Amino acid sequence: MPEGYSELANEAVGAANGVDYAYRDTGGGREGEVPLVLLQHFRGNLDNWDPALIDTLAATRRVVTFDNAGVGGSTGTTPDTIEQMARDAIAFIAALQFGQVDLLGFSIGSFVAQQIALIRPAMVRRLVLASSAPQGAAGMHGWAPEVIGAIGTPQTKPEAYLEVFFTRSAESRQAGTEALRRMYARTQDRDQATTWATREAQYDAVCTWGIPEHALLQRLDALGMPVFVANGDSDPMILPHYSYLLAGLIPHARVKIYPDSAHGFLFQHHAEFAADVEAFLAGSS
Amino acid sequence: MPEGYSELANEAVGAANGVDYAYRDTGGGREGEVPLVLLQHFRGNLDNWDPALIDTLAATRRVVTFDNAGVGGSTGTTPDTIEQMARDAIAFIAALQFGQVDLLGFSIGSFVAQQIALIRPAMVRRLVLASSAPQGAAGMHGWAPEVIGAIGTPQTKPEAYLEVFFTRSAESRQAGTEALRRMYARTQDRDQATTWATREAQYDAVCTWGIPEHALLQRLDALGMPVFVANGDSDPMILPHYSYLLAGLIPHARVKIYPDSAHGFLFQHHAEFAADVEAFLAGSS
Repeated sequence: MPEGYSELANEAVGAANGVDYAYRDTGGGREGEVPLVLLQHFRGNLDNWDPALIDTLAATRRVVTFDNAGVGGSTGTTPDTIEQMARDAIAFIAALQFGQVDLLGFSIGSFVAQQIALIRPAMVRRLVLASSAPQGAAGMHGWAPEVIGAIGTPQTKPEAYLEVFFTRSAESRQAGTEALRRMYARTQDRDQATTWATREAQYDAVCTWGIPEHALLQRLDALGMPVFVANGDSDPMILPHYSYLLAGLIPHARVKIYPDSAHGFLFQHHAEFAADVEAFLAGSS
Repeated sequence: MPEGYSELANEAVGAANGVDYAYRDTGGGREGEVPLVLLQHFRGNLDNWDPALIDTLAATRRVVTFDNAGVGGSTGTTPDTIEQMARDAIAFIAALQFGQVDLLGFSIGSFVAQQIALIRPAMVRRLVLASSAPQGAAGMHGWAPEVIGAIGTPQTKPEAYLEVFFTRSAESRQAGTEALRRMYARTQDRDQATTWATREAQYDAVCTWGIPEHALLQRLDALGMPVFVANGDSDPMILPHYSYLLAGLIPHARVKIYPDSAHGFLFQHHAEFAADVEAFLAGSS
């Protein structure tokens, strides 16, 4: 039984690009299995992963979370393009001497995951895209006003987080409250909060990724690895519409939309989502 | 209770383009509701609609099936482009003096339905696309060899039909056998069989529609009406992949993939599909 995510030490590794990356490394998995590397959402750090999700994933495989360059406890500067974020993530993966990994990208992290798989396809065995959208898709130029108004402010509040990551149903709100409690259970060695500079740079990158350009949709033809696309049915930040678009453009994709859930569907449905990810990564689904 | 589809008279209407169209008209529905017009699959005529599906749809609304120009009992020549088939279908709808209709297009009929909705958007209130794909999508240039080899021969056999329209599971094959029995129950006034010329022209149209051209995917941005996209999970003729693509490209689309079913998913799951179509057309889903 691996140590729980909430008790896990913060580690650091220096990469060839001069950045010292903060990360956590858990689970184990069978000999020869590639590790699963997670790419975090807008303004998130190591503590914004729901420990319930990480611990379930880590029951069967090695799971690594990290802060990309300039984010949270990592040194360097947060870049304002998805392209540079992908290069920075590749530098981290290379620093851990992983030849090949499975990637799970969430929200802006899913954009970075797509870009990594396009820049360095040999590095990515299987790809999970949670709350994702393709570059250039119509209607993706920045978050909706109520979304950026809720989670784009200098100081974010738990209520605003719940608004975007969970639906208005009693069940979803309850799941959200529980997820937040799990994320805040850790009191020792919490990760450094992300800065306003990170927020600004990440949102520039989100808007740049969303500049509409239909021709860019064809990029996804080049994703040759198996891909699992997942979203909440009521995500206000990245509509499930775009998950279908991804599944229709990526040659070998499956898609699942989780009921009564929003941007945080993977925390709300952590047991089901972790089982789906495990089945996908194991090649049995 | 309307007359069953298997006992329905063949009717004929002359259109402004000089074609006499064979059609059947059933159901009733509430005052002021628009009729539902069905567009048939590759090589199909009036008798290739499963009466179980039509009768369920007709329980709540007026349903019209017809042979497009040159097909089955209609006069004229089968054109070799989807564009001309759409113009021919518009001429039929106009001949019945329907100002606005709901369209349910199946397979090649779904290509025609998309084209009608693009040429004459004001004519289409709501659109159902069954086993469909967008024009220009990669990998849609003609049916797979085993599919055209099964249902593209001069004389088609029930076994070949079952191969493409149903899966290999016992349940699906049983459903297929029952659907065929329902379609062949009618002995009086069956529709005229479709000709080899129709097969040739329709397959030219299918291949032309499938010439890969990524930029054409953007056409779907212009479909402003609500759209319901549906497919079988194991359709070998038009992969469910393309249903996701449609749902991701059409602004207001929902998608449902039916389990353990192939091209004939709408006959196999006739009760569930008819209920889904009814809920969609009634605006309650």
